[in-house]
Amino acid sequence: MIFGSDNMAPVCPEAMNAITRANEGYASSYGADEAMQRVTAQIRSVFEAPDAAVYLVATGTAANSLALAVYTAPWQTVFCYEKSHIAVDECGAPEFYTNGAKLTNLGGTDGKITPEVFKAQLANYRKGDVHQVQMGSLSLTNVTEAGSVYTLDEIRTLTAIAKENGIACHLDGARFANAMVALGCTPADMTWKAGIDVVSFGGTKNGLMGVEAVVLFDPEKAWEFELRRKRAGHLFSKHRFLSAQMEAYLTDDLWIRLATQANAAGARLEEKLSPIEGFRTLYTRDANLMYCGWHRAGHERAKAAGAYYYDEPGGHPDSGPADEFLNARLVCNWSTTDAEIDRFAALVRG
Amino acid sequence: MIFGSDNMAPVCPEAMNAITRANEGYASSYGADEAMQRVTAQIRSVFEAPDAAVYLVATGTAANSLALAVYTAPWQTVFCYEKSHIAVDECGAPEFYTNGAKLTNLGGTDGKITPEVFKAQLANYRKGDVHQVQMGSLSLTNVTEAGSVYTLDEIRTLTAIAKENGIACHLDGARFANAMVALGCTPADMTWKAGIDVVSFGGTKNGLMGVEAVVLFDPEKAWEFELRRKRAGHLFSKHRFLSAQMEAYLTDDLWIRLATQANAAGARLEEKLSPIEGFRTLYTRDANLMYCGWHRAGHERAKAAGAYYYDEPGGHPDSGPADEFLNARLVCNWSTTDAEIDRFAALVRG
Amino acid sequence: MIFGSDNMAPVCPEAMNAITRANEGYASSYGADEAMQRVTAQIRSVFEAPDAAVYLVATGTAANSLALAVYTAPWQTVFCYEKSHIAVDECGAPEFYTNGAKLTNLGGTDGKITPEVFKAQLANYRKGDVHQVQMGSLSLTNVTEAGSVYTLDEIRTLTAIAKENGIACHLDGARFANAMVALGCTPADMTWKAGIDVVSFGGTKNGLMGVEAVVLFDPEKAWEFELRRKRAGHLFSKHRFLSAQMEAYLTDDLWIRLATQANAAGARLEEKLSPIEGFRTLYTRDANLMYCGWHRAGHERAKAAGAYYYDEPGGHPDSGPADEFLNARLVCNWSTTDAEIDRFAALVRG
Amino acid sequence: MIFGSDNMAPVCPEAMNAITRANEGYASSYGADEAMQRVTAQIRSVFEAPDAAVYLVATGTAANSLALAVYTAPWQTVFCYEKSHIAVDECGAPEFYTNGAKLTNLGGTDGKITPEVFKAQLANYRKGDVHQVQMGSLSLTNVTEAGSVYTLDEIRTLTAIAKENGIACHLDGARFANAMVALGCTPADMTWKAGIDVVSFGGTKNGLMGVEAVVLFDPEKAWEFELRRKRAGHLFSKHRFLSAQMEAYLTDDLWIRLATQANAAGARLEEKLSPIEGFRTLYTRDANLMYCGWHRAGHERAKAAGAYYYDEPGGHPDSGPADEFLNARLVCNWSTTDAEIDRFAALVRG
Repeated sequence: MIFGSDNMAPVCPEAMNAITRANEGYASSYGADEAMQRVTAQIRSVFEAPDAAVYLVATGTAANSLALAVYTAPWQTVFCYEKSHIAVDECGAPEFYTNGAKLTNLGGTDGKITPEVFKAQLANYRKGDVHQVQMGSLSLTNVTEAGSVYTLDEIRTLTAIAKENGIACHLDGARFANAMVALGCTPADMTWKAGIDVVSFGGTKNGLMGVEAVVLFDPEKAWEFELRRKRAGHLFSKHRFLSAQMEAYLTDDLWIRLATQANAAGARLEEKLSPIEGFRTLYTRDANLMYCGWHRAGHERAKAAGAYYYDEPGGHPDSGPADEFLNARLVCNWSTTDAEIDRFAALVRG
Repeated sequence: MIFGSDNMAPVCPEAMNAITRANEGYASSYGADEAMQRVTAQIRSVFEAPDAAVYLVATGTAANSLALAVYTAPWQTVFCYEKSHIAVDECGAPEFYTNGAKLTNLGGTDGKITPEVFKAQLANYRKGDVHQVQMGSLSLTNVTEAGSVYTLDEIRTLTAIAKENGIACHLDGARFANAMVALGCTPADMTWKAGIDVVSFGGTKNGLMGVEAVVLFDPEKAWEFELRRKRAGHLFSKHRFLSAQMEAYLTDDLWIRLATQANAAGARLEEKLSPIEGFRTLYTRDANLMYCGWHRAGHERAKAAGAYYYDEPGGHPDSGPADEFLNARLVCNWSTTDAEIDRFAALVRG
Repeated sequence: MIFGSDNMAPVCPEAMNAITRANEGYASSYGADEAMQRVTAQIRSVFEAPDAAVYLVATGTAANSLALAVYTAPWQTVFCYEKSHIAVDECGAPEFYTNGAKLTNLGGTDGKITPEVFKAQLANYRKGDVHQVQMGSLSLTNVTEAGSVYTLDEIRTLTAIAKENGIACHLDGARFANAMVALGCTPADMTWKAGIDVVSFGGTKNGLMGVEAVVLFDPEKAWEFELRRKRAGHLFSKHRFLSAQMEAYLTDDLWIRLATQANAAGARLEEKLSPIEGFRTLYTRDANLMYCGWHRAGHERAKAAGAYYYDEPGGHPDSGPADEFLNARLVCNWSTTDAEIDRFAALVRG
Repeated sequence: MIFGSDNMAPVCPEAMNAITRANEGYASSYGADEAMQRVTAQIRSVFEAPDAAVYLVATGTAANSLALAVYTAPWQTVFCYEKSHIAVDECGAPEFYTNGAKLTNLGGTDGKITPEVFKAQLANYRKGDVHQVQMGSLSLTNVTEAGSVYTLDEIRTLTAIAKENGIACHLDGARFANAMVALGCTPADMTWKAGIDVVSFGGTKNGLMGVEAVVLFDPEKAWEFELRRKRAGHLFSKHRFLSAQMEAYLTDDLWIRLATQANAAGARLEEKLSPIEGFRTLYTRDANLMYCGWHRAGHERAKAAGAYYYDEPGGHPDSGPADEFLNARLVCNWSTTDAEIDRFAALVRG
């Protein structure tokens, strides 16, 4: 009953086997391994983007920060959701990688930036005013940190506003597969067809050991990205082991299968918890991640039985006294079982 | 017959098995895994440094840059050998991580900084002169990039000069085990007992998949290091797989056995090549890495038969016309076999 | 009728004469001029801070950014008012100087951060959480950008909260003298006695050509500040001309007289405009700066007659249709005359 | 008898008068003053560069660092003379402004980089190698820090090598006027006609209070420069006082007259000292700056009589025992008198 994070989950067997298989003899280092050529071809095919530049790094923070740095000058700003990972969970990594760009936090609804909020913020910017930071990039996260998923229309509306203002668009896809499965769309639909310039295409949270692809749809940015990655110590010498994971991930739709399992687990979890008296979600659960609250006694029973998840701050006046209703973040992953979910729900219910 | 780099070699079976074993169920993420506690204890024991702070990253560039950043303010300089990895092979990573510190390149003898050169450089510094960059840190590499190994006396002499000037001392130990085996000393001898404040303790080049420990002998630097690592995207979510490698590495002296094999291969390679007419080394080979040159025909024979290694620039007036004598860097690793070496030497000899 | 900015005003005659007098023969460069020794003594005396470190720079942005950089690590955050100069008018200079620290914008009341807002923000911080930026410094501005003035109690309350959390306190005193005159207090009252660690003591907006002192009450920060200033190109070679201005400024209470004049002009301006129908201030005017709005026709009459000031965005539903009531920022300075004010008010009134 | 630095000299009367005259009433701030428009027109005319972008800052370090930052990415290197101001006298300002670019120090002859040295260094660069810092910019200084002057041919030869390698060319013209007068050429000859992309056009060392123009011959770099300048706190609010100095400087060839005087003083100084037994110059004196050495007794006599100049390190085996022959840097300026020179020479002679 571990719902702490998809980061705590094991690596899927297919990825583990691929790593083992990759350990045959010698291989060219620093990204020149043959497997990486196959990965690039796979990603280009999956994304219907034959010119895209594709690079692998091992952490989501590296993927996001490097991607943003390519598209945001030091004197520019990244527009992002106020509770996005880049804003609150990366210890200022985007600021480090961009050499001091400012993150402009935007509010919104249901964990998503709304067009109104974005436009209102942009109205503060006077074109050609040297005294203020300049508009640089927009970073969206899908699945959002709140567990909701931007629809394709929502993405397109936001990127259209960005484009009108010369703002580049980044997608933090730490849970890219989960969002895509939730939307029932293609990778292209969710990215370049929707105005995204660069995507952090996550694998780690969806069953890999530690690999994220950065996909740049403008190949002219490729060399700068390579230099930034190397300079940051994120170019792996034994790169073949990153390639192997990603190759397995993209083979036979493994990535989609894993995300489908995780999302189904998320749905089952909501389904089982919803009937419990006092239970309520804080945001729409669209994929494998849910913010929700319930009675203190239910928390205590679950934890006493070994359940693990993150407590979340915040009172809930509409559900009773704050010290009697507690919030939590529950995350399912590819390996979450129905039995775990059912047992957990039973404990919460009491 | 691959002598290109120890980075091209496979992962040793023990490390691979440890990775597989680590994939059991859930584990705390971001370095809070239990295996990391064991690794910290191992390192402290091996280094006879019960208070040392220990962190894992996946690349040598990250290890070096983060270690240097902790000890070098932006307005300070890192003294380093002019051909050291941090100076010429990291695309300016130390400059990035230190927020713009200057690397002061020092010459030397046999791939090593000499006390004379270091002292002469320090003579340029006027205490309290705000116009110049300030003295920050000294970075030594052992095994050196040239393949030689600093003796303990040499290290101590250089760090003593540094300490007199308030300069912190970093050891780039990408090939730490190879140097230690060559010296026949303990980890403590080669580090804190010799004046080293922080060491990049490499595993990747010696049979791991991608793990380097940073060992800070002053635990007061620990928190800053943690923040810098996180901010750089080098804190792994599925950290247990880094821990597992390092734990295996330090168990039953695996790391020493691997380095012993690699060094023995290096010695055999030199032994087999030395009698060949025209062959000469450019630097003393003390471990598993050798810069050397021989007749063009020998290169052509070896390469035609599938040998792989890096050609090195530079003419050799004392051995004949420059276009007839070519240099190479040859690197052995834990998996290099006697048969490979012997076959290679036979091809070079003709 | 120029109310655009105190930056547009001329230099006061005393400062201009001091500059001319300073141009006698040779002088030591880079801050080693004798006048700087006198300035340091003056500032220490005026601030009742015999150990304070004192440095001169030529711009407010340099003063603020360097001061904040000394007290805010790259992975920390500066808490500041959401419309403060450092947040919106310096093109990210604090981010540049701190090597990428984050500015956390706080709301408040009447242009001032309130203790409630500050505490609520601090509640987001989990001690020892490596994933988030760390608490670094609090920057207050007095006179605020809104034209209001923090009382001593308000400053003390905010700095006390900061100190409890290990947060350093900076005062942006671009209009230090105006605030002090408004409060009727001493420099010490408004700074170190109220918990301020470092102050940007402005002169430029109050009659100087271009000089701001940075006063660090902890002399242990002195050398780092000197290095940062030099490295940023803000150490003047012909520094004597900065010293001369500041020396004149602090002699015979010139700075207080100039601020008193400017504040009196601000008060007169409010007094003359207040009776006009529809006129209202947006924030409390406590010194020489006022945000206010009035009928469109009054704007048109004033501008047609040559008045100059900044239009400010924002509608005013309580005063009539947004296109009929327009806002403005009006700034008086040491040289503003009663005649100008009276003529301007008459034009606004119609 | 002050030969310490042209920075220690007073401001010329024409510049001082211009500053005083500029203090009439109000003026637009932050570079929008009318005088700046005239300055831009003057510079464009003087440089025969009708499209050049022109900006003023107050220090040479700011001018150099900002100019280099526009032309050098963080992962690139600036090639410069090993004793250039940017390399040894700016506390790492270029590293700070470029966000961590590396300065590659080049040796040379007579204080100048030679084509051979530059080419040899470039030979180390492998095109497309992500592991090394990339070629960014070349920075030349004229007058050199050694007191010699690059000829137009020398500049053209070096910039041609640079251009072949895609390297931008910066000229540190802290003593631009002195070099130009020495060469008897036009500003265009010494800059864009000779391959220079951006120049720091110094005024401070040649009679101004504190103004350097940065002239970018490619106007597409203008906006980035403006943003960098603002972000660094180098955009002056009362900018009119910078403009006034530069306007006076460029009016009626004042700048040329001042430099002519300073160079003539330098020549006279060499002429008077040269016949003295044991006297020798260390580099060719081409303008107002001379490195030279003479007998200890001569130093002692001069200093006892109040002469001031910088002692320089280094022994001189060809002139007698090192402790009997001491080196010095002697700098003349626009205000140096013949009487001073003659008295000084007489003291040295004894």
